[in-house]
Amino acid sequence: MKNYIVLVFALSFGILSAQESLFNGQQVSSPEIHPDKSVTFRLNAPQADSVYVTGDFLPSVKVQSPYGEMDGPGKALLTKDEKGVWTYTTEALAPELYNYAFIIDGFKTTDPANPFLIRDVASVMNIFIVPGEQADLYRVQDVPHGTVASRWYDSEGLGMDRKISIYTPPGYEQETKKYPVLYLLHGAGGDEEAWLTLGRTSQIMDNLIAQGKAQPMLVVMPNGNVIQDAAPGAGSAGYYTPNFMVPKTMNGMYEANFDEIIRFVEDNYRVKANKENRAIAGLSMGGYHALHISRYYPDTFDYVGLFSAAIMARGDESGEGVYSNFKETLKTQMDNGYERYWIAIGKTDFLYEANKDYRATLDEMGMPYEYVETKGGHIWRNWRVYLSDFVPLLFQE
Amino acid sequence: MKNYIVLVFALSFGILSAQESLFNGQQVSSPEIHPDKSVTFRLNAPQADSVYVTGDFLPSVKVQSPYGEMDGPGKALLTKDEKGVWTYTTEALAPELYNYAFIIDGFKTTDPANPFLIRDVASVMNIFIVPGEQADLYRVQDVPHGTVASRWYDSEGLGMDRKISIYTPPGYEQETKKYPVLYLLHGAGGDEEAWLTLGRTSQIMDNLIAQGKAQPMLVVMPNGNVIQDAAPGAGSAGYYTPNFMVPKTMNGMYEANFDEIIRFVEDNYRVKANKENRAIAGLSMGGYHALHISRYYPDTFDYVGLFSAAIMARGDESGEGVYSNFKETLKTQMDNGYERYWIAIGKTDFLYEANKDYRATLDEMGMPYEYVETKGGHIWRNWRVYLSDFVPLLFQE
Repeated sequence: MKNYIVLVFALSFGILSAQESLFNGQQVSSPEIHPDKSVTFRLNAPQADSVYVTGDFLPSVKVQSPYGEMDGPGKALLTKDEKGVWTYTTEALAPELYNYAFIIDGFKTTDPANPFLIRDVASVMNIFIVPGEQADLYRVQDVPHGTVASRWYDSEGLGMDRKISIYTPPGYEQETKKYPVLYLLHGAGGDEEAWLTLGRTSQIMDNLIAQGKAQPMLVVMPNGNVIQDAAPGAGSAGYYTPNFMVPKTMNGMYEANFDEIIRFVEDNYRVKANKENRAIAGLSMGGYHALHISRYYPDTFDYVGLFSAAIMARGDESGEGVYSNFKETLKTQMDNGYERYWIAIGKTDFLYEANKDYRATLDEMGMPYEYVETKGGHIWRNWRVYLSDFVPLLFQE
Repeated sequence: MKNYIVLVFALSFGILSAQESLFNGQQVSSPEIHPDKSVTFRLNAPQADSVYVTGDFLPSVKVQSPYGEMDGPGKALLTKDEKGVWTYTTEALAPELYNYAFIIDGFKTTDPANPFLIRDVASVMNIFIVPGEQADLYRVQDVPHGTVASRWYDSEGLGMDRKISIYTPPGYEQETKKYPVLYLLHGAGGDEEAWLTLGRTSQIMDNLIAQGKAQPMLVVMPNGNVIQDAAPGAGSAGYYTPNFMVPKTMNGMYEANFDEIIRFVEDNYRVKANKENRAIAGLSMGGYHALHISRYYPDTFDYVGLFSAAIMARGDESGEGVYSNFKETLKTQMDNGYERYWIAIGKTDFLYEANKDYRATLDEMGMPYEYVETKGGHIWRNWRVYLSDFVPLLFQE
């Protein structure tokens, strides 16, 4: 073999690595999660005058905004050592998937030592997991894993091919049996990626199924923004700055065309195509969609989950008829019967009152539901918990 | 509906958005790609003393390193306006997928206005596409799209479930016919995600198939790091700093167990399970793997692609026998016959001489191959081009 051994491969790549560090100059470990669950952040920034870490593990603070005083993310000052490395260590943190960023001389940026990032609308944040308890559901564990497919379905109603994320449970490809389906809808600013990235859906499902707490099921995560064929950057619109408010997301078109998605799934997957084996849930705007879809197709879903649902009037009404006869269709849904109508919200959610009023409406109608109230507001931490709590309630015989 | 309309949804989310911008303070558009293909970078950093952009669209520069003078990425200084917004506009750029980062007061970081990032080993870089020509293959276009599945296969040989990325072509789910398969291998520091993220494989395949230039085929992208069950952050090892040099990647174990991957694909997908319909290609270390796999299973692949292949001696030899009888097995492979043995490398690649020597070996043996020499070095830009050029050569009858 000698005649074609020319370079020592490792050395060559050593050079490339050196080149990288030459330009990065940031060879610190961050974040470091200690056995006592405290976490150390480090940043090599000799020229900086101040470095803060901000993230959802810090208590929120009151800040002034154009809308008056409101909650803002907390921040903590790092300490600089003689080499220009900044450090901050938290107290012991509760097990959780956390996000964070650094603020360097007033400039908010990600941690160069941590390549694990999640996009939330137009922001990119670093993440880390403090293990234990609920957070262990978010970790990739050594259990059988389902498949996550990124597919495109032809939407005649919306006039385009559209991307959709589909989780099939471990064993799906080997078995011959049919499975139930959970349709899981994202919130405003989200897309078909949000429940997978921010929501940790595939990890939660793998782990709950491995623990015997959830039935094996498909989880279908469509894109609820009817003007998009796919998530920002993943569709034919190319790269652009994602917006929180995507036009036409609440005009009825998504709901009016949701039967296409169900048909696509039932034509393409080995699933039980009946009401007993269909669930629909969503967070925030996705809760709004789940509410209206389950009512508009009033004999289709035996399970409905409203996670911090955006209970509100519609914007406009391109989806002809979707929002008409609200109470009548809700009553029809009730009369047709269902297994569970599950409402969850945090005490400090800005949609708390709206959900309270909606429950009053349901009470008035005598429409049965279950209600779960948690701490906290309109945040992914809650939605991951709601998903983890909702899924074990589904399709139990 | 009035009784549960409590908050004006848009206004509420307006507050949240304001909160976001309140803490970001970075509402500039960056990068902006102009019709003449020049690109403007912007950064809102009033407190910064210097801001550079660095990226692969700038000419490289000579820098001093511990290994002597070498090529380093070029950088360009941005200009600060009175509001603290820094700006730099390039000349017209050739169509390409580019990456970049900012260097703010010596600190290398990503562009907060651009949420589109790709991880390369442990570095995260922003990306943008200057459209046209070859780069149009990298864009998501309005053509039929294949499915990308993230699956796990049970590797008995490596003793774990392992993640694998599989592209199935548009129509796969609707048709009943069988398809050929390209096995596509990543380089050192890569994993089952690299060809999808850095390599734009699904976009290239969708576009080439839509143009009638490539046969519809599956593309199977395994993880070549035998100690990993999945990419960093996606496996049971959790989050850690990814390393360029992963132990045991070139010890023969991957090659020795590659038949498991072929069997998994052929048992689980509607594919043509014969030599005429199997291709294998890889970049750098993946080229090394493709060379050895195709030789070790010498009657299995009708197409072999070596992209900037790491032609070199093995490190150790845990994969018993994989590296023995090198020339004999290569001769067997030659005698068994194949359609194409395709070697591509850039003129300034550090593996250029090693590849030249390998071609001399093949010439000496009389082993036929095709050879493509391009500009440039050991970079993804070349590997995307090689993939785009190699795929149309496959499975043509």
